Formats: sequence, C-alpha cells, structure tokens
Amino acid sequence: MQIRLAQLNYHIGNFEQNVRKIVGEIKIAKADRVELIVFSELSVCGYPPRDFLEFEDFISKCEDSIAEIASHCIGITAIVGAPLRNTSVNGKSLFNAAFVLENGVVKNMVRKSLLPNYDIFDEYRYFEPNRDFDIVEINGVRVALTICEDLWNIEDPLYITNPMDELMEQNPQLMINIAASPFDFNHREDRIRVLSANCNKYGLPLLYVNHVGAQTELIFDGGSMAIDSTGKLLHELEYYKEDKASFEYNKGLKLVSGEPRFDTRLKIERIHDALVLGVAEYFEKLGFNKAVLGLSGGIDSAVVLYLAVEALGKENVRTLLMPSEYSSAHSIDDSVKLSENLGTAYDIVPIKNLFENFRKDLNPMFGNLPFNLAEENLQARIRGVLLMGISNKFGNIVLNTSNKSECAVGYSTIYGDMNGGLSVIADLYKTEVYDLARWINRNGEVIPENIITKAPSAELRPDQKDSDSLPEYAVLDEILIQYIENRKGPAEIAAMGHSEELVNRILRLVNLNEYKRYQTPPILRVSKKAFGMGRRVPIVGKYLC
Amino acid sequence: MQIRLAQLNYHIGNFEQNVRKIVGEIKIAKADRVELIVFSELSVCGYPPRDFLEFEDFISKCEDSIAEIASHCIGITAIVGAPLRNTSVNGKSLFNAAFVLENGVVKNMVRKSLLPNYDIFDEYRYFEPNRDFDIVEINGVRVALTICEDLWNIEDPLYITNPMDELMEQNPQLMINIAASPFDFNHREDRIRVLSANCNKYGLPLLYVNHVGAQTELIFDGGSMAIDSTGKLLHELEYYKEDKASFEYNKGLKLVSGEPRFDTRLKIERIHDALVLGVAEYFEKLGFNKAVLGLSGGIDSAVVLYLAVEALGKENVRTLLMPSEYSSAHSIDDSVKLSENLGTAYDIVPIKNLFENFRKDLNPMFGNLPFNLAEENLQARIRGVLLMGISNKFGNIVLNTSNKSECAVGYSTIYGDMNGGLSVIADLYKTEVYDLARWINRNGEVIPENIITKAPSAELRPDQKDSDSLPEYAVLDEILIQYIENRKGPAEIAAMGHSEELVNRILRLVNLNEYKRYQTPPILRVSKKAFGMGRRVPIVGKYLC
Repeated sequence: MQIRLAQLNYHIGNFEQNVRKIVGEIKIAKADRVELIVFSELSVCGYPPRDFLEFEDFISKCEDSIAEIASHCIGITAIVGAPLRNTSVNGKSLFNAAFVLENGVVKNMVRKSLLPNYDIFDEYRYFEPNRDFDIVEINGVRVALTICEDLWNIEDPLYITNPMDELMEQNPQLMINIAASPFDFNHREDRIRVLSANCNKYGLPLLYVNHVGAQTELIFDGGSMAIDSTGKLLHELEYYKEDKASFEYNKGLKLVSGEPRFDTRLKIERIHDALVLGVAEYFEKLGFNKAVLGLSGGIDSAVVLYLAVEALGKENVRTLLMPSEYSSAHSIDDSVKLSENLGTAYDIVPIKNLFENFRKDLNPMFGNLPFNLAEENLQARIRGVLLMGISNKFGNIVLNTSNKSECAVGYSTIYGDMNGGLSVIADLYKTEVYDLARWINRNGEVIPENIITKAPSAELRPDQKDSDSLPEYAVLDEILIQYIENRKGPAEIAAMGHSEELVNRILRLVNLNEYKRYQTPPILRVSKKAFGMGRRVPIVGKYLC
Repeated sequence: MQIRLAQLNYHIGNFEQNVRKIVGEIKIAKADRVELIVFSELSVCGYPPRDFLEFEDFISKCEDSIAEIASHCIGITAIVGAPLRNTSVNGKSLFNAAFVLENGVVKNMVRKSLLPNYDIFDEYRYFEPNRDFDIVEINGVRVALTICEDLWNIEDPLYITNPMDELMEQNPQLMINIAASPFDFNHREDRIRVLSANCNKYGLPLLYVNHVGAQTELIFDGGSMAIDSTGKLLHELEYYKEDKASFEYNKGLKLVSGEPRFDTRLKIERIHDALVLGVAEYFEKLGFNKAVLGLSGGIDSAVVLYLAVEALGKENVRTLLMPSEYSSAHSIDDSVKLSENLGTAYDIVPIKNLFENFRKDLNPMFGNLPFNLAEENLQARIRGVLLMGISNKFGNIVLNTSNKSECAVGYSTIYGDMNGGLSVIADLYKTEVYDLARWINRNGEVIPENIITKAPSAELRPDQKDSDSLPEYAVLDEILIQYIENRKGPAEIAAMGHSEELVNRILRLVNLNEYKRYQTPPILRVSKKAFGMGRRVPIVGKYLC
C-alpha cells in the first residue's frame, strides 16, 4: 500500500482554507496513485482550537468539513483529525478523534486516549479520554492508529493506561500516529527517542505526521517521520515548512522516491528557524505584514530586528531610535549601523522634550521627591507610546524585544518596553540571546560587534548598568534555569554553589513579578517552559516572596 | 458528636499564616469541646496553588505543615485539605486530598475523584483522580468525606463515576464536603440546589465548608452550610467573611447555638459585596493599601472609585482628572462632585500640552495624515502614563475601570485605559454597571445623577458618543451574553431577533480583539464566564472574523 504523509499548516477556525488544502492534497495524491493519505491531529479545525470547542457552531462546522473532505475520498483513503461528539450522557461532550475517510464517507473513528493537560496543553478541558481500543483495517493492512500523546506514556508513565498495549492484542501490522506536537529546542530528539522506543517495544514500523506552522505562541516544527520496526529512523519530512513524503508499506516501509533526509541543524539554528517561522506566522495568520520596534542599541532589539527582517522582509520592518539624555552616543551609532547592515528604515525621535514635559505636568504631585524608578519608567513608557502611535497610524505590529532573564526578574517597564503584539525572544535567556547574535554573525558582521561586546544597560539614569541591579547574566541565568525549567527549590539551587541570599533574592523577584508577566504579550515558545500559557502561577501568592 | 465548620481565608503559599490560623481555630475548638473541626479544600496551601504544585519544595512545605497541624490534634479531630503524593509509578504525581488528623497524626487520607478542568479550573493539570472509595469513621460516626466537585456530578454528568454512589455501599451516616468554590452571582443558588439534591438522593445530612477570600481574580464567597437528610437548608455561614458554626450530629444535625441564618442578598448586592472583597483582598495579599485611578466623568470610573473606597477607605484612594480638548465641561464638574461626595483626593492634570507635544514629535512620521484612531489612542495612553507615574512614585496600584462590554468588543486603548494592576468591573456588562450605580444611589445620590444619565462617550474626538461606533448597550449586551456566556453561534443569535449584519459585526469584534484581552489586567470574576483564565481563545484564530 502506498501511504503519503501530508505535513500541512492549518489555521485555527479557518475551515474554508483548511478544507481547501486537505482536498487539494487528496486530489494530488490520487493522481500519484497514493492509496492512503494521512493528515495531522485536529487538522480540520487547526490546533489548538481551545475554547472555540465549546461552541456548537464550531463543532458543526467541523462536521460539515469532514463530510466535504470525505466526498473527495473515492478511490483513496484519508485520515484527518477533528473533534467528535460524545454521544454518551456521561463525560465531556467531545473526543479528540482521527477520522478514516473512504468511499465518500467516514469509515472509522479512532478516539484519543491520553489527553495531555500539562504545560501548554489543556486537552482534558474539552475531551473525554477514549477507553475502547480497536485497530482499523485499511486496504487489508491492520493499522494501530493513535493520536499524538497516545504513544508518549512509555518513559515516565503519566497515565494509567497505554493504548498500544491494548491495541497489540489485535495484532496490528503498522502504527500510524497523527500529532500536533509543538517545538522546543530539544523536542526533535525527544520525539525520535519516544517514537523509536514504541517501534522497538512493539516491533512495528511507524508513520508519524505532525502539524507545521505557528499558532500565536506555539510553533509547530513539522519533522514528520517514518521509523522501522527496530526503531531506526528512515526519513524525516522538512522542518518549519510544509512537506510531504510517500512510503510503500509491504511488511516494512520504503520511501517511494528520493533520498532519505535527516535533520542536522544545531540547537541555535533550530531556535533561529523556529522564531522566524513564529514571527512570519503571527503576521500571516492575523493578516498583517508590517512591523515596528524600538532600537535601543542593545543586543535584544538588534536580534529581534534581524529575525523580523528574516520573517517579513526588510521593506516591512521599520524602527524608532528614541534616545534620552541618558543614552550613550554609541546607542544611536550602533543602531544606525545595524539598520544600514540590514537595510531597514529608521526614524530618530529624541524623547528629552516629552520627558521634561511629563515631569513638569507631574511636578504638582511629585514635588521635590528624588528621581527614582518613576522617572526611569516614564522614559520607557514615552517610547512605548511613540511606537504604538506608529502602529496605530500605519498598521505596523509592535514587536516586543524583552528577553527571558528580564521577564523573569521583572527588569522591564510595564506599558513601556513590555509593549508589543508579539514577544519574539522572551523565551531566550540573555546568555542565549548572545549565542544567537554570535550565530547570526557567523559569516561576518551583521549585528555590529559593539552591540555584542558592550555591557548591557537600560540607560534610564546616568551611567546605569544592568549589573548594578542584577548579578552577571551567566549567574542569573543559571539560577533562573534551575528554578523555572527544573522547578528546583531555593535550598537545592544554593547547594549548586550559589549564595543563599542571592538565590532567595532572585526567586523572590521571579514570584513578585508575576503581575507584570500576566500582561506580557504572547511569547514565542522555544523552550520546555516558556512564560505564558505553559506556566500558570498565582499573582497574589506568597511563596518564596 | 460536636462538629465545627471553620470557614477561613487562606493565602496561597503562605504556609506560616495558614498553619497559624488553622492551629488557632483548633485550640479554640478544643476549648469549646468541639470533637471534629473541618477546614476547606487545600486549606494548608491556599486555593488554587496552580503551578506551585510542580515544585517539590512546595509539596514538602505542605507535608511539614500537616505534621505541624496534626501535632495539635490531641483530644480533637481535624479535617484539612492539602496535596498528597501519588506513590504509584503510574499517573500524575499528586492527589488533591482531605487529611483526617487525630491523636497527633494523620489518621486517614481521602482523595478527590472528580477533578474540575473547565472554565477557571485546571485540576487535572496537577492531580490524579481517585478510584478507590472508602468512608472514614470519626468518633464512631461513619462519614462519607468528599472534596468539592465530588458532589457535583448529579445534574449534567461530566464524569463517568459518581463518588457518593460508591460510598453508599459502605452505609455512611453523614456527608462532609470540603470545598474551594468560587463566587459568581448565581452560585449560591447552584450550590444549595446541587448539595440539597445530594442529601435528597442519598438520604443523608451534609456539612459543607467553603473557602472565603479572594485570590487575584477569583473571589471565594464562603457560605458554608448544613443541610438535613431531606435536602432542607439548616444554616448558612457568613458570606464574604470568615465565620464558624458548630453542629451537634446525632443521627440528624442541630445548630449548637444561635439562630439559623440564611442569606437574603439581592444579586446586585452580592456583586457589590464580592467586588469589594476582591479589591480589598488583592491589596491585602500583595501587601499594598493605596489605589489610584483616572476619573473620566463616566459611569465606569465612578463605580470603581466607589468600590475602591468601600474596600480600602477614602484616605487610601486618589484620582487623576485628565481632561483633553475634547472633554466636556461636565466631565470635570461631575468628577469633582463625585470626589466630594466620597471624600477622595483628586488632582487635575490637563493633557492638552502633552498631546500637542506628542503630535509634534510624531509629525515627521505622521505628516499630513488625518486625525484618526492613532490620535484618539494617544490621549488614552498619555493618561495611562500619568497614572503609572503616580503608581511608581507613591506605591498606589492603578485600578482599571473597563467594563465587560468594551473588553468584549475592544472599545478601549491597550497601554492606555486598559492599564491597571486589577480590573474591578470588567466582568460586568455596561448595563450591569448602570444597575450597580443605581443600587449604590439607592439611599440618595452618591454617584452624581448626571454621570448615570448622560450618554456614554470616550471623549477622544469632537462630539464623540459610544453609540457612533457601537449599538445601544442594551442591544450590544444581549448579543454579547448570548455569545460569551451562552456560547451561541451567529445564526442562533440572529434568530433571537437581531440583524444578521449586526450580530456578525459584533462577534467579529469580539474575536478580533482577543489580542487586546490577552494583555488585560486580571479581572475580578463575578459571572459564570469572565474574560481571563476562564476563557481561553486563540489570538490568531480565524473563527467568525
């Protein structure tokens, strides 16, 4: 049997477009004599549809779409993903299902058993878990068809059932798994390891189809694959773009044409590619194409500008340079040089005058109180207002340039430099931003060297340096990673060789600043634990603070 | 057996304070010859602890706290709520449990079976559901001890098991349920109906202990209660404050002293009391006591000012009046009158000068482009910056004054009037804000009548009225309620007598503006479907927009 994996980019709720894409691929596949074509999890409605699933109207549109797609499945079988109503009076009203379409109708429905409900996942919010297990027969081949998480209970068992254990009782010959598995910079290895372990454990080959594209903060990196019954990787589809591949199943799996391909990107390259996809998709799916950001002369805004140019084209990205009286001369020079290197338009708007006017108007209340955080934040907020002015007048979405280290400790101004429609690098610690900048410069200077080598500064008061308020980033990031990614407590982190006082101070800052992060723009997720929907912490809690 | 219900206010992660409160009540109860004292769900750590549950250090602190509380349970039994480790290799690592403490140790642990994972609830994110059912015997009484949701599978069954059905096989004599059940303006009736139905179905009396207090956006209203075996309500504890009550169990339940009390508040009174509690708690639990807000002369800021004064005291609330050239004369007069009625301090800071300065500095980019949304938003953002200046300089938290209607359709300026640490009335539709204002004035004018009767206007351009861009609020709110609270689709809503074009336009605005709501401050929840953690919608989705 010839089987095609179709790795497509879907748009949540855009049924017309999703159906058009799926039907288009079915037609091509049929012409290519493909017998079975497989699309990813919830492909009909896009993933994750979130609370749209609570709308009867949305579910009806899913059903209409499936009927429409099925009508094209004559002489070919297709597997698509969509929600399925639970007809039992008990339990949640939906299943997350795979629909096998054949002869113009739905031939089988397979329901997802293991519903991820951690980190960014909320599937048990909507779906009832499946408890009945049946293989499906397609063109005489006995297929164990599962959905994403169903194959992930193999290492540290988070669930009390294991769908493949149940399905093995019916002697399947081939595993097919449809997925919507979001990117993090280690996730390719995790996927290959877990999926191979399944092949190995059950002695079956596997075809795996992932989603590609991004949905707000979640980046789906594709990388669909075929693995043989010993756990050996046979072929990977493209990462970060749509792709397809056909396999002949005849006891084993064989790539129909071309050479097997395996991804060899470095971690930093993956992060780059994922972020560029994430930015491009946010604009594309919202129907915008122009961005604006503030260039401070620092590394964060330089890296974001570079990524935005990659994603949107230099003609679609403009910047504002907004020096204050505390800005160093090089902050403008470096920003101008960066803009010239990248070919992007910039405007220089000094904020001295506005700053003085605000101080004058606030003076009846402020009186003779000393210059402090209020005046520092004021400068950041004036810049935020100017950027939003450009955004409102010309339709450019503001890109936020915060990094994960400053998000973590609240070293940023809410309604100031925290503004933006999308936060591009706020899932990269400052040390990782440097890594990315150096990688960007690997073939020559794109980001001026001075931006990379100078000491980081917010430049909101005379001679300010980040290191006045924070430890060196190498130390800060180490503590943050132990707390945020590894969920270690203060005693454990101190035992790794940091001063107890410093650890307590940093953890306290992280927890105190939850109120700021609540209002942060969505952050493109590239790690296993990004701020945002994947990390849910009480604002008024009093834990370690 | 004498049983006391202790309805307390816990602080998430503040183990020292929670333990001190619980132990204090145990000592008082012992002196009062109480034999069993019952505290609410997750009382040891506060509810909801959210991702703090992922920290080993946090769970250890829960365990230490339970040991400390147990050591005081000599000659008295106590029931407290806390997370419990799952010792099985399979499944999530924790249970949500009730601990029965006696003779200085943990005598029994009962695990929660039904884990709410809808709206604001995420319990399956952390907890494994219980599957083993046992009653506990306390002083010779066979108690069916359950946790909150365990009794809620009685009407529209969301779960496939029903814990009380299982427990009835062991012939319990009394039901005890410990809960953390958040307020909405109908929830008292829902609770009494559901809990009574359990008593009626199982022929058992019930003691129910709820949490009181607020945790950021969630308001826990208390209202713990006793119900007899026929489903008749015997007594309600106080709403919106800490309270306790003792009952003699001897086949039936009898209030030990005092007269039975039943809550008779009107819906609007409950909303008022809940919001005042919510504001007071947000400040108290963050360790702040002063607020600032902008007074526009409109009804929203007037109502928020009144609520803030109720919650924090007039001496702790200050306002800024920030007229622009488009402000009407009455906007200042009305605001001054309101401030005088309430005795709150205000400053008048006209924004004309700053507005002109921004326009001048933006002119090199804006050129001769006509005045539009950019200039409108600019005014709102200048006000936002001024309020944040006061906040940073004096430590006043900015209160956001948006209402639910404008949040829904995006009739607000991000980083402008959407600023704030807490959004006080953004779960009230505009028509409900009017109801509340009229209720506030029930005994005489507090909010100047002119604020209530004048046509709503953002006053950001000459002679602007809300009705220029939006339908009348009575119509808008009806459409919004059908979409947001009732999850009706466009065809269904139009069939209720609204023009199809209008319905489509409104629903489109709601979905397009998800990006703004993502960055909204936390909103005090008073309805069954508030914006925020209880409503999770994709930003880049293309559904109905």
